[in-house]
Formats: sequence, C-alpha cells, structure tokens
Amino acid sequence: MQSLRVKLGQRSYAIHMGSGILGDPSLLAPAIGKGPVAIVTDTNVGPLYLKALQNTLKSLHKDALVITLPAGEESKTLDHVQSITGELLKAGYGRDCTLFALGGGVVGDITGFAAAVYQRGVACIQIPTTLLAMVDSSVGGKTGVNHPLGKNMIGAFYQPRCVIADTDTLDSLPEREFRSGLAEVIKYGLINDLSFFSWLEDHLDSVLARDSEALEKIIKTSCKDKAEVVARDELEGGLRAILNFGHTFGHAIEAASGYGHYLHGEAVAIGMVMAADLSRRLDLLRESEQNRIYKLIKAAGLPTLAPRLEISTYLDFMKVDKKAEAGQIRFILLNSIGSALITGDVPPAAITQTLQAFMERSA
Amino acid sequence: MQSLRVKLGQRSYAIHMGSGILGDPSLLAPAIGKGPVAIVTDTNVGPLYLKALQNTLKSLHKDALVITLPAGEESKTLDHVQSITGELLKAGYGRDCTLFALGGGVVGDITGFAAAVYQRGVACIQIPTTLLAMVDSSVGGKTGVNHPLGKNMIGAFYQPRCVIADTDTLDSLPEREFRSGLAEVIKYGLINDLSFFSWLEDHLDSVLARDSEALEKIIKTSCKDKAEVVARDELEGGLRAILNFGHTFGHAIEAASGYGHYLHGEAVAIGMVMAADLSRRLDLLRESEQNRIYKLIKAAGLPTLAPRLEISTYLDFMKVDKKAEAGQIRFILLNSIGSALITGDVPPAAITQTLQAFMERSA
Repeated sequence: MQSLRVKLGQRSYAIHMGSGILGDPSLLAPAIGKGPVAIVTDTNVGPLYLKALQNTLKSLHKDALVITLPAGEESKTLDHVQSITGELLKAGYGRDCTLFALGGGVVGDITGFAAAVYQRGVACIQIPTTLLAMVDSSVGGKTGVNHPLGKNMIGAFYQPRCVIADTDTLDSLPEREFRSGLAEVIKYGLINDLSFFSWLEDHLDSVLARDSEALEKIIKTSCKDKAEVVARDELEGGLRAILNFGHTFGHAIEAASGYGHYLHGEAVAIGMVMAADLSRRLDLLRESEQNRIYKLIKAAGLPTLAPRLEISTYLDFMKVDKKAEAGQIRFILLNSIGSALITGDVPPAAITQTLQAFMERSA
Repeated sequence: MQSLRVKLGQRSYAIHMGSGILGDPSLLAPAIGKGPVAIVTDTNVGPLYLKALQNTLKSLHKDALVITLPAGEESKTLDHVQSITGELLKAGYGRDCTLFALGGGVVGDITGFAAAVYQRGVACIQIPTTLLAMVDSSVGGKTGVNHPLGKNMIGAFYQPRCVIADTDTLDSLPEREFRSGLAEVIKYGLINDLSFFSWLEDHLDSVLARDSEALEKIIKTSCKDKAEVVARDELEGGLRAILNFGHTFGHAIEAASGYGHYLHGEAVAIGMVMAADLSRRLDLLRESEQNRIYKLIKAAGLPTLAPRLEISTYLDFMKVDKKAEAGQIRFILLNSIGSALITGDVPPAAITQTLQAFMERSA
C-alpha cells in the first residue's frame, strides 16, 4: 500500500492506494468521528463491495446505514440529494456523522455534495471503485450534481477526510469504463508531465492488461500530479483550470448528445483531440506532437471523432461552461506535451475551424 | 450611515447600515465583479424596493436579471434552488456573476445558498429588508433551505461580499414581523450583553414606535454582537452555538406545528422563555432574572406560551436539531442575563419538567 498526502492546511487529507485495503480498519479508524456512519453506493457497486466495507466498519463497532442509488449519471440530481439527506434525517443522524461514498464518480460527486450541505457540512470518506474516480473525481474536493441545463452546475468544493483506492475493485470494471478512466490518466501527462506521457506510450500494453504494477503506477502518478495542482489552487482561481484540458469541448459533447451517450472519459478523449487540433491551428503545438496525442488516445481504445452536431450547438454549450467569463469561452491549450496554458483569447474563427474539421471527419 | 466589518480573513466583509443607502451606488461598486448581476426577491418585497435597486445598478451600467420567488417559507426548498440556478444558466451567467438577495430571511437564505452552490460558488450581496434578516440571517454566512423533514437541514456556510441594511425598508414591515425580529434582538442581550438587555428594558417604547435612532441602535448592537461571535467561530465549532439560544425548543415548535404557523422569531421567543425556565430548574438562572426575561419578551408583544403537543413530539423534533451529537440534545442555557453556556449534559427529567410545565400553561 502507498499513501499520498494532499496538503490543504486544516483540510489536508490522505489518499491510500493498494490491493485489498478496503478490508483494513486501521485506515478508516482515524478518519471516522464519534458519530454514526452511512454508506452511499449504487445498484452496480453495492452487490460487489458493500459487504466488505460493512464488515470493516463492524470491526470498528459501526453499524452503517446503507443508501443505494440507481446506477448511472441520471442519479446525480438535487432530487437525490434530497432523498439522501432525508434518509439521514429519518435515522436521526446529526452533524457528527460520516458519509462513505462507495462507487464511481457519480456516487462520489453526489455523496461529497450531500456531505457538504447536510446540516451545513459533515465528514465524508471517498472509496472510489472506478479508475476514473480514483484518478480524478475523488481527488481535489470537487463535488456536485447536474442541472437539467448543464453538467456539474450545482456543487461545492468540499474535501474528504480520506480517500481509499482499493485497486482490487478495478477487477470488476467493464472494459469501456476502464478505458474511459485512461482518458484522464493521459490528460495528466499532457498538461503537466511529459515523462509520464512517454511512459504511457511505452507501457500501454501492460496498462490495458491491467497489470497490477502498471495500475499502481498510473493511479499514483495521476493522483500526485492532480494533488500538486490542487494544493496550489484549491478553489480554482487560476492554475487548477488546466485540469479541465479537453473538458470545454468534452462537456459540450456530453451535454449536446445527452448525458450517458458518451462516458465522461470518452467525451474528454474526443475533447483532448479537439483541443490539440485547436492548439496546433494557433501555432502553439507542433503537428508531430498532435499526432502523438492522437495515436495514444486511439491506441487506448478511446473515441477520437466528435458527434455530428450543428456548430452553433457546440458553441452554445461551450458558453455555459463554468470556465467562461463574461460570455467568453476559456480554453486550456497545449504549448507542448506536458505544458498547458489557459486562455480566453482564442479567435472565434479558429474555434469554428476546429469544429468544422471534426464535423467533416465525422460524416 | 454606519459600517461594521466582519473579520474573517480573506472572507471579511462590510455591513452598511443607514437610511436610504439602497440608492447609493458607491457602496455596491466595490463589491460587484466584472460579470453580470441577478436580483433574487419575492412577491412581497419586489414591488416595494426592486425598482430602487435596479436604478442603483443601472447607474453602475448593470442590467439585472430579476428572479422573483413566491413570498413565504414554502419557497425555501431545493426545488427553488434548481429554478434559480436554471434562470442563471438560461441567461448564460458564468462564475463571475453576482447575486443580490433582496428580501427577508427566506430570500437571504436561499439566495446565499444558491450563490454558494451555483458553479461551486459565485458572489452574493445581501440586502435584508426585515428586522430579523438585518440582525440575524444576513450576518454570519449561514445559508440554506428546508428539508421536508427539518428546517435548514440543507445548507452551507457562505459569506456575502457585503450587506446593505437600509433602515427605510423597515417602514413597510408588518407589525407582527417587526416584533418577531425583536426576539433575536433580545437574544443578543440575553446571551452576551447585559447592558444591551437593560437598554432594551428602558427603551422598549421607542423601539416599538420604530424611532429611527432606536432602530439604528438595535441593528448596530445586534450585528456587532453577532459579528464578534461569528468572527471567533466561523464554522460553528463551539462558541457560535450560543447564537442558537431559544432555537432548540424554537425549531421543534416551528417544525411540529408546521412551518409558517409561527414566525421564526415568535418560535424563538417561546423557545427563549422555555430555555430560561430550564436554566432556572437547573439552578443556573435566578428566578428574578427569569421573570425579567419573561417580562421583556411579553412586553415586546411576543408569544410566551408553547403550542400544546405531545411531549414525545417535542423530544423527537429536538433530537434532529443540528446541535445534537450522537443523539444527545445540546442546549444553550443561561448562567445569568448576558452569559450563556452550551451543554449536552441536561438531565432528561428536567427537560420533561419544562415541557410539562408549558403544556399545563398552554391548556
């Protein structure tokens, strides 16, 4: 097992990574308060890992209330925040309770947000069970739900007490979801870590074979890269926005094609290919680097073609992106592999050219 | 005009108090960002003061989006958070927008919470138009909505950019609401400020006549008293709980009798009389002081009799109070007028005796 500390002053917390650590009460004990505990999970993950977590908690003399959500992005709503908090109220849970998020990104996001707002804030422990959640949504304190008019538009920055990433839980992850998680892993190489990107090019086969050493390497490096960025900019004032590389196009793809059609990582993969195209058009990125990016994303089994939609539809969805300021879309672009920049100063013609090029290819 | 600074490090903000200051753009200018603005108000307050605020904003070249909620506690729901954020999304408002809460406590609480969670946090300016909101809910950063199972059970600590308390807006306040606000004013004297309590005993007539000097005195003293407590305990770790004096019983009264039957201040008034009774039963408070408390609350035209309900009903509602820990009800009690203490260690028999005494009186 390895541990990593995310340094955020009073809100610092540990990320523990390793095989079988879900069964280790010594990791949970220091993070749980005196009060009662509740586990939020979903209909996919519950049957697989709920029992193990319950047993670990029982050895700490905690009998957990279990709240099971329907699996899928459709559960990430304010209505479900109301139902989760309703279960806690019915059980008489006070401010000293601890919520466990056992599942993928959806469970992590909504449970973290429910913890942030229940009685104005209770403790939360994240137990991500997908690659995407391990390398992305359980690190950095972003929590929230979707609004019918936009993804993740309602939320809070709220740090967990700790994160338990048990790599054994990845054994059951469907191939498509595993590859979707790889999109965010590749992203860390692109924005911040050239040597990690090269390592991924060289070791993609072992990663795709879910070799345990390779898995530990990508989770640890991704969490470390993300934790560094988050520690320097907790509330997304500036630098942290580079974590959204590929997300401006990606969110538009997800929203415009209806949530659930693409997995988040798939939309981000396409978005990264589009952002690389835009970076090259603006003479920031060399064509050889753009080709390397395309090749790795393609080799990871991720989609690289954008869905065919009106260009105005893309632009409308990109304007409601949280990074937009005064109606101006902000982009994360690449100077080179391993070096990102944030800019609101992109000529509209270049954006349109990128969109047009992808619409032609997707025909 | 007078101003008061609430000291919370990076989240410090100013409270401006005075006659006609809603029309002063120089107070708003430093608190508004570059982005667009929206005003949230309700069907009672909008017709009275919306125009004035819109004009002040126009002089700053800001054309405000207006969102009007139905007046009343029934609007303080997650559904309305969804509708407020939906309006902002439809208008394409990004993270750089500023929300104005123009109204009483309900508008302030829900708008503050919507600002806290919209895109994980945008700027908020509080413009309270009731005495209660001026002396209580606009100071301290408590925001939130009700859950069907409990008042204020979903929320966040979120500080405004500034608070504008225009005393002219109190002219239109119905008598019952004005007196309800006085309950919180009296509370500050009881928990923290004996000389203010004595001042209130001596000057109650001018206060009830809404003499402008008396109004300025009570708003300023209440805000100062509350700001001091909040500055020392922003996240309600300890001391801040004394601000909930009268609220443990009060919230149970509000919840058990159905929200809206009692005004918040009315329920708090009864709750304070009950908490004084309990304090005397525990030999903390002298009977002569209990009588002074009863007399002032009565003279302020506030209710002092609890609604007739099963004692178990009271106890059940008190157990879901946010101050409860591990199922134990925590009380704010008085050692004397001007000195409060927080304790979870109250013999159940004493609580029952207080409840029984009030049930007999209310027959």
